[in-house]
Amino acid sequence: MKYISLLGATGSIGTQTVDILKNHRKEFSLAAMSVGRNIPLARKIIHDLSPELVSTINKEDAEMLQAEFPGISFTYGEEGITDVAVYDKSEILVNGVMGSVGLQPTLQAIEAHKTIALANKETLVTAGHLVMEAAKNSGVPILPVDSEHSAIFQALQGERTKNIERIILTASGGSFRDRTRDELNSVTIEEALHHPNWSMGAKITIDSASMMNKGLEVIEAHWLFALPYEKIDVLLHKESVIHSMVEFHDSSVIAQLGSPDMRVPIQYALSYPDRLPLLHAHRLNLAKIGQLHFQEIDLERFRCLKLAIEAGKAGGSYPTVLNAANETAVAAFLEKRITFLQIEDCVEKALNQHQKQESPSLAEIEEIDRETRAYLQSIIQ
Amino acid sequence: MKYISLLGATGSIGTQTVDILKNHRKEFSLAAMSVGRNIPLARKIIHDLSPELVSTINKEDAEMLQAEFPGISFTYGEEGITDVAVYDKSEILVNGVMGSVGLQPTLQAIEAHKTIALANKETLVTAGHLVMEAAKNSGVPILPVDSEHSAIFQALQGERTKNIERIILTASGGSFRDRTRDELNSVTIEEALHHPNWSMGAKITIDSASMMNKGLEVIEAHWLFALPYEKIDVLLHKESVIHSMVEFHDSSVIAQLGSPDMRVPIQYALSYPDRLPLLHAHRLNLAKIGQLHFQEIDLERFRCLKLAIEAGKAGGSYPTVLNAANETAVAAFLEKRITFLQIEDCVEKALNQHQKQESPSLAEIEEIDRETRAYLQSIIQ
Repeated sequence: MKYISLLGATGSIGTQTVDILKNHRKEFSLAAMSVGRNIPLARKIIHDLSPELVSTINKEDAEMLQAEFPGISFTYGEEGITDVAVYDKSEILVNGVMGSVGLQPTLQAIEAHKTIALANKETLVTAGHLVMEAAKNSGVPILPVDSEHSAIFQALQGERTKNIERIILTASGGSFRDRTRDELNSVTIEEALHHPNWSMGAKITIDSASMMNKGLEVIEAHWLFALPYEKIDVLLHKESVIHSMVEFHDSSVIAQLGSPDMRVPIQYALSYPDRLPLLHAHRLNLAKIGQLHFQEIDLERFRCLKLAIEAGKAGGSYPTVLNAANETAVAAFLEKRITFLQIEDCVEKALNQHQKQESPSLAEIEEIDRETRAYLQSIIQ
Repeated sequence: MKYISLLGATGSIGTQTVDILKNHRKEFSLAAMSVGRNIPLARKIIHDLSPELVSTINKEDAEMLQAEFPGISFTYGEEGITDVAVYDKSEILVNGVMGSVGLQPTLQAIEAHKTIALANKETLVTAGHLVMEAAKNSGVPILPVDSEHSAIFQALQGERTKNIERIILTASGGSFRDRTRDELNSVTIEEALHHPNWSMGAKITIDSASMMNKGLEVIEAHWLFALPYEKIDVLLHKESVIHSMVEFHDSSVIAQLGSPDMRVPIQYALSYPDRLPLLHAHRLNLAKIGQLHFQEIDLERFRCLKLAIEAGKAGGSYPTVLNAANETAVAAFLEKRITFLQIEDCVEKALNQHQKQESPSLAEIEEIDRETRAYLQSIIQ
């Protein structure tokens, strides 16, 4: 039995993790979780999986649920998230929260020697050097939950990293794959939130539409697999059937394929190095799909991706700025304060005004994150 | 340094193996080899790689070469092939001869505890139960050299066989992929020998055109990966870019891809579990290829494949009959004694007249092989 801590249980990754845990009660047990604002859903998960510890966003929610579930411990706020992340009984932390808020609890769970199943890519983007160093020092594995990184992780099983020629992250191109830059000027939030292949949260769906998501993934891959940016390629593949690939120096390419279903990478991280049957799986039927398409990425068309790769290569504190600027800009877009193409303008401005710090500490990262957000708020009317 | 015995050094697999050995002189050394009728090529390989033992087809060739290379030992005939296969210094036997003649030396090399790099699929088709049992008893790995089986073998690294849902062998469809059965009536040897993707020997190219090759591969996969036929699927994929795939019970699919280059699976078997750089490799460029196509197999269109799967499922001595009948029929087609579509008629007749033996011994297999060939010669005018 593996005991699990889950951050963001009521979110997109969280509910799919819950689905897996419900279907594998002999293998996994939910020991602790943090939930968001959806209290009815939180209540349902508590009923279904009886965690020992639950953290809510605020005190009122914790007290209300405490009255309903006297046998369970409740906590709340930032401290509550940390309590869940380092919960003694848990062996694995599934970090399914979005944004740079996922960083602190991840670092604390690593110190507490938890295996990290990481869906929160901002953690590695904003502080990859700190996270990977901490993981190395604690001897803790970081298991990717993102479908692309899980694909690469799966393709690397039984292989030696010294033999990697390059990794190839596939990109669907997002909601606006087939639109020109001119057409992107006037796209609406509703259009941006409609992803052709994957069902995900709002922030990541916008990031997919702008291709910033792929840029964050490039930086994430750099840290997860300890590869220079020159060995990380991106390939347009609109069907999202090949989730990513690894090319070795003998020219052999290993790929992981499947129907778009986030439960596969989540469950793989939980069952790793074993695999478990996936209930109600949509099995891949390539004959039915008929064709897979591939195309080179035009970095001028997808400026967010270009900015991310440049920030990654520049290194130091630049990825922190990239991430904070993007989070702020996407939030402003979702609030209809800026247009879709202004997201990339905001990110570019934030990067241009930044003075690089070589190897920022956690405190410095948090300061840079705050400054970047404040700067962008000042220029967004 | 790994010392290598090579059967069929002057053939298609053999020359590509020689190419790899020449490019990796620090890693590999050719200790012993058997050659065919191309003595000038044999002479060149001896010059390039200085093997200690060389076996020719007949005594005259051995004596002629002995006079030219006094420092090297020469032998010939069936006994010579065995001497090469069990050569004391060699750690690996690369079996690159075609047809059921590859069986005996493979069994003897297994007894002599050599690792087997097997390009000769007839060995497993005709006597899979004997070969795999011998390998198990000797604790010897059988490493596939066929591109499809190497793909599956690579995809299975770091995985557990209990988690396999099915394997998917891809099939280009061969030279006559796009022809109707009516059009197949009048095809010529020259047309059959023109494979769209791979450059191979004559027998295997005809087998590709008839899809018998894929049928033999299904039976080979059954033995290599210890899987029931129900877990082995075939998928038409005309580009031959995905060399084969494994689907696991969590619905995740791992595939091996590459440009068509037999040196990749040959070298992988030699370097396994490591990989070495491949000189002058044609790196896969999916953006340039643009599209991959997939289609279900029509077993009525590809009757040889259907016959092979049926013979495999029927088991016992049927695959031996299938293989012997096919070898005889393909030879007759290459001699213009029968038409292309009569290959499948011959195989079907041979299977229909056969009385199954449940678990034939090596002597029985050889007898069945002889009887089948004699039967077919009697019905081919």
